This record gives sequence, structure tokens and C-alpha cells, in this order.
Amino acid sequence: MPRQADPRKKQRILSIATDLFAANGYHGTGTAQIADAAGIGKSALYHHIKSKEEALFEISRLLLEELVQAGERIHGKAGPADDKLRQLSRELIRNIGANLTAWQVVSAEFEQLTGYRKRIIAELRRSYENTWLTVIESGTAAGLFRALDPVQAKAVITMHSQTYLWLRADGRLTPEEIADRLCELVLDGIHARPTPTGT
Amino acid sequence: MPRQADPRKKQRILSIATDLFAANGYHGTGTAQIADAAGIGKSALYHHIKSKEEALFEISRLLLEELVQAGERIHGKAGPADDKLRQLSRELIRNIGANLTAWQVVSAEFEQLTGYRKRIIAELRRSYENTWLTVIESGTAAGLFRALDPVQAKAVITMHSQTYLWLRADGRLTPEEIADRLCELVLDGIHARPTPTGT
Repeated sequence: MPRQADPRKKQRILSIATDLFAANGYHGTGTAQIADAAGIGKSALYHHIKSKEEALFEISRLLLEELVQAGERIHGKAGPADDKLRQLSRELIRNIGANLTAWQVVSAEFEQLTGYRKRIIAELRRSYENTWLTVIESGTAAGLFRALDPVQAKAVITMHSQTYLWLRADGRLTPEEIADRLCELVLDGIHARPTPTGT
Repeated sequence: MPRQADPRKKQRILSIATDLFAANGYHGTGTAQIADAAGIGKSALYHHIKSKEEALFEISRLLLEELVQAGERIHGKAGPADDKLRQLSRELIRNIGANLTAWQVVSAEFEQLTGYRKRIIAELRRSYENTWLTVIESGTAAGLFRALDPVQAKAVITMHSQTYLWLRADGRLTPEEIADRLCELVLDGIHARPTPTGT
């Protein structure tokens, strides 16, 4: 049996590869640089990661699998759709805030993946989006949400997933506070309204 | 006096450079390829574009200047803030739909710009965002919009500017229809509401 790879070592290598991809781009980074930055030889690196593309794939897969699993957990719970939307939002913004560099890399370099790896990452993205769509549709079915055009549902998801472009780890608001503000916008819009009890 | 460059020739070269940057990435494209694809020699190319970075800068500048000017025109008109928001939205989605490849390049490769060029493009982006922020703030001042947290205003802009990620030129809806649906979402949210005249 081949010697089992230490998952913490692999995680450390992927974290180093993430930083290098973010700093120099996928095309500007080689496996030799990843090995150097990790302080290991190329053959030791090969024990964990067989290629640069495998590194990008693993970074993307781990990030998205965590989200897909969290999404399914939230979707499977009881409760109204707007609560579930708020939970999806909090989970996503927390994930983005905790993995800003990985989000930049995974978003910017997706097109560099090829073959089955590209299809798997595209499928994980689709699965995660589908959780949002299902929650939104269940809200519409329950009469809690208006019927949305697909581009509106897409915009709700994009508004959340693209926060990595401006979110800062040392920002004024916690990820949960940002999520709650985005959901307030999505759920109730920006038009001022008379309060329900207004005279 | 140096011979004046023909602006249509320059526009054609920039359009070819946009396609090459989109297909092969900024790092994967050289001025020799741009000249080849344009069917001209390197010295003829140099007459219009001095470097690869100048090409990316010009592509970005032209795209953003058009938006900034349209934004200022809309902002300068009379009318309620929600109408202006709808006009900003239509103008932006039209621009994105008409320049999808340029939007991909300008968004993906901004970090490749350096020095004064990077500062000018960042300033144009800021100016354009400021038009949206000013329109939103004027709506709040007029009592038409709720007071928004800065992250909510940012999310409204991001939701629009990131449509280049999923907008398709041959899509089901016109850019104007997409813009109107995004504005409906932003203005009134997805929560179902009793109609104002409901009994």
C-alpha cells in the first residue's frame, strides 16, 4: 500500500499554492515555486499534488464542497424560506470572509481548469446555486416571496458571491452583519415604505 | 507634425487585442500576436499602440469613459431617484451586453495595469460608482429610499456590474428587460406584499 499522505501537509501546500496563484496568477506560478515556498523538494510535493492544475482543482473543490454541504444542511432544516435565505447568506459571507484569497483564485482561474476537473467544479457551482434557487422557489410556493424571473434569482446569488471583490477581513462589519444587510436589501428593497402600523 | 493615427484603425486593433486577451489572457498575449491578428507589421502597430499595457489601458479607458459620461448625463437630468436608478441600470446592462468580451478582459486583467494607468482606471471606476451612490443618496434625502448601509449600495452596484459573468448576447431578455428586473428587485425586494389597495 502506498504511504498515506498527511492531510495537514497537503492543506498547507494548497494554502501556499493559493497565495502564489493570487500573487502571480496561475500562469505565472510553477510547481517548483510551490515546492520552494513550502520548503520541500519537488518529489515530496509530488507525493501530495501531482500538478499545478491538481492544486487549483483541489483548492476549488475544497472551497465549494464546504459550501454545498452547508447549503444542503440549511435547505434540509425546517423553517420559512426567508430565514433559510438569511442562513445561506451568512454561511456564504462567512466562508468568503474566511477564505478571501482562495475566492479570488477560484473565481479568477476557473477557466484554466480542463476536462473532468473543470466539469466537477462547474457541477459543484451549479449544485450550490441550485440550493439558493430551491430555497427561493420554496418561498414563492409558500406565498412568502413574489415569483422571480430567473435573472432576479441569479442577481441575488451574484450579489452575494461577488462580495469577495470588495469584502475586507478587517472591515467595519462582521460577515454576519454584512449578510443581514444584503438580505434586508434582497427581501425588502430600498424603496421607503410606510410602516405597517403607520397612520 | 507626426502623422495623425486613424481612430478607426486604432479601434480595430483594440478590438482584436480584446479578443486575444480574452482567449489567451493578458500574460499569454504579445504585441507580435496582436500585429499578426490585425494583419499589420510591428512598426505599424506601434504607430497606434506602444505596448501591450497601453492596449489594455485603452480598452479599459474607452469602456469606462463611456459609462462615466452616460452616468453624469443621467445624474444631471431632472426626475425622481428611482427613475434615474432605472436609467443607470439600463445604460450599464446595455453597455455590458454590447461589450461582453471587453468587460471580461477589463474585469479580469485590471491588476495587470501599473502606475498612472492603473490609477486612472481605478479613478474612472470610482467616478462611475460615485454616480450610483449619489443617485441613491439623493433618493434617501428625498424620502423615496430608505437610508442604506454602504455595503447595501455596494451590493446594488455589484449586482449590476457583475452581470457580465452570466449575461449572454443571445439571451431570452433584452438588456433593458434585464435592467428593469434588477431594478424591481433592488427597489422592492422579493418579499410578497399585499397590494396597496388590498382589502
